[in-house]
Amino acid sequence: MSLAKILVAQGGGPTAVINQSLVGVVLEARRQAGVGKVYGARHGVRGIVNEDFVDLMQETSHNLELVANTPASALGSTRDKPDAAYCREIFTVLQAHGITHFFYIGGNDSSDTVRIVSEEAAAAGYPLRCIHIPKTIDNDLVGNDHTPGYASAARFVAQAFAGANLDNAALPGVYVGVVMGRHAGFLTAAAALGKKFDDDGPHLIYLPERSFDIEQFLHDVKATHERYGRCVIAVSEGIHDASGAPMLAKLAGDLERDAHGNVQLSGTGALADLLCEEIKSRLSIKRVRGDTFGYLQRSFLGCVSDVDQREAREVGEKAVQYAFHGDRDGSVAIRRVGYYSVDYELLPLAAVAGRTRTMEDHFINAAGTDVTDAFRLYLRPLLGSGMPDAYRLRPNPVAKVLNRG
Amino acid sequence: MSLAKILVAQGGGPTAVINQSLVGVVLEARRQAGVGKVYGARHGVRGIVNEDFVDLMQETSHNLELVANTPASALGSTRDKPDAAYCREIFTVLQAHGITHFFYIGGNDSSDTVRIVSEEAAAAGYPLRCIHIPKTIDNDLVGNDHTPGYASAARFVAQAFAGANLDNAALPGVYVGVVMGRHAGFLTAAAALGKKFDDDGPHLIYLPERSFDIEQFLHDVKATHERYGRCVIAVSEGIHDASGAPMLAKLAGDLERDAHGNVQLSGTGALADLLCEEIKSRLSIKRVRGDTFGYLQRSFLGCVSDVDQREAREVGEKAVQYAFHGDRDGSVAIRRVGYYSVDYELLPLAAVAGRTRTMEDHFINAAGTDVTDAFRLYLRPLLGSGMPDAYRLRPNPVAKVLNRG
Repeated sequence: MSLAKILVAQGGGPTAVINQSLVGVVLEARRQAGVGKVYGARHGVRGIVNEDFVDLMQETSHNLELVANTPASALGSTRDKPDAAYCREIFTVLQAHGITHFFYIGGNDSSDTVRIVSEEAAAAGYPLRCIHIPKTIDNDLVGNDHTPGYASAARFVAQAFAGANLDNAALPGVYVGVVMGRHAGFLTAAAALGKKFDDDGPHLIYLPERSFDIEQFLHDVKATHERYGRCVIAVSEGIHDASGAPMLAKLAGDLERDAHGNVQLSGTGALADLLCEEIKSRLSIKRVRGDTFGYLQRSFLGCVSDVDQREAREVGEKAVQYAFHGDRDGSVAIRRVGYYSVDYELLPLAAVAGRTRTMEDHFINAAGTDVTDAFRLYLRPLLGSGMPDAYRLRPNPVAKVLNRG
Repeated sequence: MSLAKILVAQGGGPTAVINQSLVGVVLEARRQAGVGKVYGARHGVRGIVNEDFVDLMQETSHNLELVANTPASALGSTRDKPDAAYCREIFTVLQAHGITHFFYIGGNDSSDTVRIVSEEAAAAGYPLRCIHIPKTIDNDLVGNDHTPGYASAARFVAQAFAGANLDNAALPGVYVGVVMGRHAGFLTAAAALGKKFDDDGPHLIYLPERSFDIEQFLHDVKATHERYGRCVIAVSEGIHDASGAPMLAKLAGDLERDAHGNVQLSGTGALADLLCEEIKSRLSIKRVRGDTFGYLQRSFLGCVSDVDQREAREVGEKAVQYAFHGDRDGSVAIRRVGYYSVDYELLPLAAVAGRTRTMEDHFINAAGTDVTDAFRLYLRPLLGSGMPDAYRLRPNPVAKVLNRG
């Protein structure tokens, strides 16, 4: 029997823990009997068609562990979304190198690539085991309780809003924080976990699962500002009007589109600036500040959930175990067990590929401006241990003497 | 002898460690013999003129320790910049409450307030000890090796650029990160500490200490992009042309001004967006992304330097010791001793008040696009222990089979 030859690659946006999954694949593969080679493709599917491979049999376990704890994609990534012709190119290269097992770590587009390559191999009668390994800060893969990468980005967002709330309490005004997430509001919703005391922000949360109405928004901000003397708002970059048109596209003009035909939402502060401008001019509130969390939320070095790290490692390990001890291609998925533990399963590729999960209705309050306790319970264990906590002085007012009021 | 009555307040922008200084004052004051009251003013000088005081004798030591570890200003802050008339109001309230010791934690504007109040008291023959306690993420107080608050913000910026560099290496393109700092580039320069390997970003750093020329900027970006296939850039929000006009004011139109007459630079993503637009349109580089670090860099909950925490605590303690065991008003300053330790001294208020330190020439390279090793040595110990570190896979290329080029 000839030795197995493994290829692993990383696709889509980097996360804080995607290298855990990579290292999970590599270390578990190196433990399997009959494995001859473990290759990594540089920059995802693009590296495959270019035969840009590195030999991961020749990397030390120690350095692999260090890389596992480093955010972003150590092999490099790509935004290419392969069509059938591109996937045939991939398949041609896999055949030429005698690859027997293909692992692709990525989101729903990557799972679709795995599906097409798997079908291509089956049609050609070429024995290739194809496994998709989940990854996305958006948490928008169907069939998963949650996805590796989401928890660490959620932790960043929660910590950022906890801090922004304290800053806003010190220097009152309106604060708008724009968070990533085109269709799914999970990451924006994580802002709610930054709130501790009743009057803490975020006071308002706007998600792409609900239509955004600028008049209602201004009404909400005004009411909150009148009540608390300040207002902290979490906004998804993907908010859109009732027709589905992104607010950014409505408010701005000439916009970049990616290979998937989507308007470029990240990497610009335009949405926060436009919302701040509306608040300033329409509500006559002077101190209005907007931040766009941008790439910080997915690649900040030093903000990670240990639960996320462990699970990202495990989906990589499980992928290899399914490949070597199972009998079919598929997508590794996380299932929640108890509060809090997880188990894994292998879903059919077609069940995950190219589909998008959004926030379930019971996670969003009736007004569409906050999350529910069900969501808080859902997210809290994912954030991991050692979450920093905010404290405040207890009120002990001193009687006035001059009382010039 | 009547008992001493202490008032402490916090001014200006919050930091990650300003509550350490507050708690340093309160705990040290409560240890002094003959102290009857420790008051805190809510929202800085504004709380003083409004007699909005809290009694800090009635707060537990335990909760004070928890508040010390919480970012932002626990008493609240203000952007008010008192003139002579405002300072007379302050003085009237201090007199009415029989305050004997006044501590104000803040930047150079706050030190100027302390100076005027001190002079007012002296002129009135009222015995009032006035001490300014340094604080600013900008590190722009003269007479200080560095200021409490700077190190933690610098750590955030370094960790953010370390992550942004990894993200940019995974998905190559141009990345522009805009950092706070109107006149002083210290915080932007901290981006350099996020760099580990030779080809890591930030590849270019633009500081307000040098004039910014858009043509030279585009030339630098083009050359870097050709060399590395990508480019990570750190830009100070305060960059300006040779005439001193802020680039943001040159590129944008109607801008908000603060009580100090300064153009509002933070709380908007406009500068990053405008620079990205120039790069995209003039250099025809497709993937160009800009982030504005905004309020995250000064108030993120969970990114702090332990060295900064200790020093911020100590300047608060020292302020009380100078007040009770010294014989004059002044501003507490940090002096560096060895590599790395610090000592403290009390500078005359007039030596610090209202003056602005900028980066020393030997911290900036000749081209004005990077820092020097002298700066790296200067900053590294301030960042504290447990800095996260980035690792990469060692190159082990696999020979091509198809070699289709």
